[in-house]
Amino acid sequence: MIASSSSLAEHIMARCDVLSTLTEEPGETTRPFLCPSAQQVHDAVRAWMCEAGLTQIHVDAIGNLIGRREATGRIGAPALVLGSHLDTVPDAGRYDGILGVLLGVAAAESLRETPLPFALEVVGFSEEEGVRFGVPYLGSRAFAGTLSPSHLERRDANGRCIADAVAAFGLDPTDLPDGPYRPADMLRGYIEVHIEQGPALEHAGAPLGVVTAIAGQSRLQLRFGGRPGHAGTTPMVRRALRRDALAGASEYVLAVEAMAEETPGAVATVGQMAVIPGVGNVIPGQTDLSLDLRHADDTTRRTLLDALLHAAYQIAERRGLEFHILSETHQDAVPMDAGLSDRLVETVATITMAACPTLVSGAGHDAAILAPHVPTALLFVRSPNGGLSHHPDEAVHADDVATALRALIAIILRLAAECASAGTEKDST
Amino acid sequence: MIASSSSLAEHIMARCDVLSTLTEEPGETTRPFLCPSAQQVHDAVRAWMCEAGLTQIHVDAIGNLIGRREATGRIGAPALVLGSHLDTVPDAGRYDGILGVLLGVAAAESLRETPLPFALEVVGFSEEEGVRFGVPYLGSRAFAGTLSPSHLERRDANGRCIADAVAAFGLDPTDLPDGPYRPADMLRGYIEVHIEQGPALEHAGAPLGVVTAIAGQSRLQLRFGGRPGHAGTTPMVRRALRRDALAGASEYVLAVEAMAEETPGAVATVGQMAVIPGVGNVIPGQTDLSLDLRHADDTTRRTLLDALLHAAYQIAERRGLEFHILSETHQDAVPMDAGLSDRLVETVATITMAACPTLVSGAGHDAAILAPHVPTALLFVRSPNGGLSHHPDEAVHADDVATALRALIAIILRLAAECASAGTEKDST
Repeated sequence: MIASSSSLAEHIMARCDVLSTLTEEPGETTRPFLCPSAQQVHDAVRAWMCEAGLTQIHVDAIGNLIGRREATGRIGAPALVLGSHLDTVPDAGRYDGILGVLLGVAAAESLRETPLPFALEVVGFSEEEGVRFGVPYLGSRAFAGTLSPSHLERRDANGRCIADAVAAFGLDPTDLPDGPYRPADMLRGYIEVHIEQGPALEHAGAPLGVVTAIAGQSRLQLRFGGRPGHAGTTPMVRRALRRDALAGASEYVLAVEAMAEETPGAVATVGQMAVIPGVGNVIPGQTDLSLDLRHADDTTRRTLLDALLHAAYQIAERRGLEFHILSETHQDAVPMDAGLSDRLVETVATITMAACPTLVSGAGHDAAILAPHVPTALLFVRSPNGGLSHHPDEAVHADDVATALRALIAIILRLAAECASAGTEKDST
Repeated sequence: MIASSSSLAEHIMARCDVLSTLTEEPGETTRPFLCPSAQQVHDAVRAWMCEAGLTQIHVDAIGNLIGRREATGRIGAPALVLGSHLDTVPDAGRYDGILGVLLGVAAAESLRETPLPFALEVVGFSEEEGVRFGVPYLGSRAFAGTLSPSHLERRDANGRCIADAVAAFGLDPTDLPDGPYRPADMLRGYIEVHIEQGPALEHAGAPLGVVTAIAGQSRLQLRFGGRPGHAGTTPMVRRALRRDALAGASEYVLAVEAMAEETPGAVATVGQMAVIPGVGNVIPGQTDLSLDLRHADDTTRRTLLDALLHAAYQIAERRGLEFHILSETHQDAVPMDAGLSDRLVETVATITMAACPTLVSGAGHDAAILAPHVPTALLFVRSPNGGLSHHPDEAVHADDVATALRALIAIILRLAAECASAGTEKDST
């Protein structure tokens, strides 16, 4: 098994290399939703699915590519679904999404001759990154039945709506939004493997980690308002004379950092800052900034956010500045299935002969869309280079891919064994 | 004298109102160097100079408007020069520069019947703001003999050089750069009155203040380099995982503020900040910022700058960031004439029956160009509204203008008295 999974891992990485050349922009990997190069990807993956013994291969109305083998001796049994997404951000790396689809194909190939008491499907979701239509997860939303008519009204940069894109890809938009929907009773569960896109596993020295939840997220746009003034003629007297909006915002950036550090599991980031007027010899009269706050526990996130906003008002008050919340959006955390995740942790620990880290995903994934619909687990593969992601230098270790493949095969076999011991697939996990 | 100076102050402010309507942009006051509206300003001021008994009125080759009365009983004696500039920034206030010229005219008018042992000149310099050709002080540089051929090669936004602008204004460019030069032995001194453009006098509750020096200035462009990362997937571990260039830059903004506050007389400002990539869910990988540092004492400024740069390297080192100086320019302080300034302080104290504040000007003025050439003093008039400047709401109190006029008249009379008591104007200040 070790030799074959290592060899298959090399295969998977070579396939990732091939798919990275299928792009809308020569010299980089840029493959938005339902672009022409997505057709080339489908052709390649379809062939590999076929080699893996997935015989019922189709593309649904939102462009998801799905390959299926039936349960041994039974047609139409609920399916365990493996997969991730096939689209990319502009100038992407070669593993984000793709790796999970190809690991699913490789697991199916490894188990091609192994009887299974449930159907096995591998899905390559057509859209996860949200690049083309500004809304992510179009593929998995349609699969899970949460694609709404309002999603379909969105238009891309060329003014084309999703129906246009679907028709141009050779699919039937009249099958949307409901055509791709897969009722929960037709699904046994969903297991996604994805690169971590962060440095936690590398930092922990672990090849794999099991995600317990997709973090809840608050995103705000904030403004500190001060008073512009001559940099040379205004003495350094805070509040009375200098009302420096950038100094207030800077104090706030450090407060955000410190308060998030003190809250285990929280991440908080100021990624944008705009200084007005933004002239070297003028004291900033206004500074706008973004705040991105995430935590697995929604109550903790809300409590921390309240504290962060309180801190902003305090800083503003002390410095004679104004503070405004320009906009805010909040999204609650999505827990993964505890039973399936626990089994995955045990499986990984057995495979690696070491404790398997669990972690919260700060980034969204198709698993977040599937989790409310079917039992879902999300396995992260270590990202080297500090978790560099959405970048051509995004990487994985071949050994880690081999370990992920062994874990994926092992969890499928464990679920199959549980199913068999329960006597009927309906009573198992 | 009080009644007449108050009445003259109202006159001066009304004249400022009139000149504010002479503009290249209807609805605002925008009057760059040698534009058509400058001709209208010359016509108006020339008439007021004439009323004030300044009979020898001419425009020199750089466009400076100069009115002169001879010393009583003597032709060609060295002149005490009063004045400031007549050009404006775009959408300017109505007092910056103008007030000093019109106070000079009013002082001449008040002293019209008073014998003086030296010539009296009022000058409206043609260019101080540096708007049209990107270099300031064209008028006073030519007057002081420091206008260079390289200045004359500069071109405005329409590609016209200074010679073109001079010719278009009806002047002779072949007289440049030397024609407007006034040798030091033809000048007794230069006294400029200008609005403060800062809040110090308002804060001190004083109508007037005497400037002891134009601050030296260092301007730098700095860069903190970190590592971009996913805001959701990168834990809050500094240096090991997060190398947040904006957090480092923010810490630096506060260090600059604190260290400048601890250095009496220093002002330090970060007016620009650019965050890269500047996306809400990406940890900033690079942050560029400006630093503007000023102090009257050059050694203090250089010492503080060294300390500020050392602090930047320390912050970068502690956070695992890089720190680079992208560019730096330095300009030493220009002291005003101590003897003339001391007399002005005493005069103001007598007039106001209160101690006269002395201060360092953080902004440049024509006085900075004249000071190395002739004994120069610079009197600031309180700017209300926190020192709001270069803005249509720029203001002065009429009472302060009246006090400034009384001070200006009194210092002229004191210099005249000293001159008379010394028996000959050559031995006096």
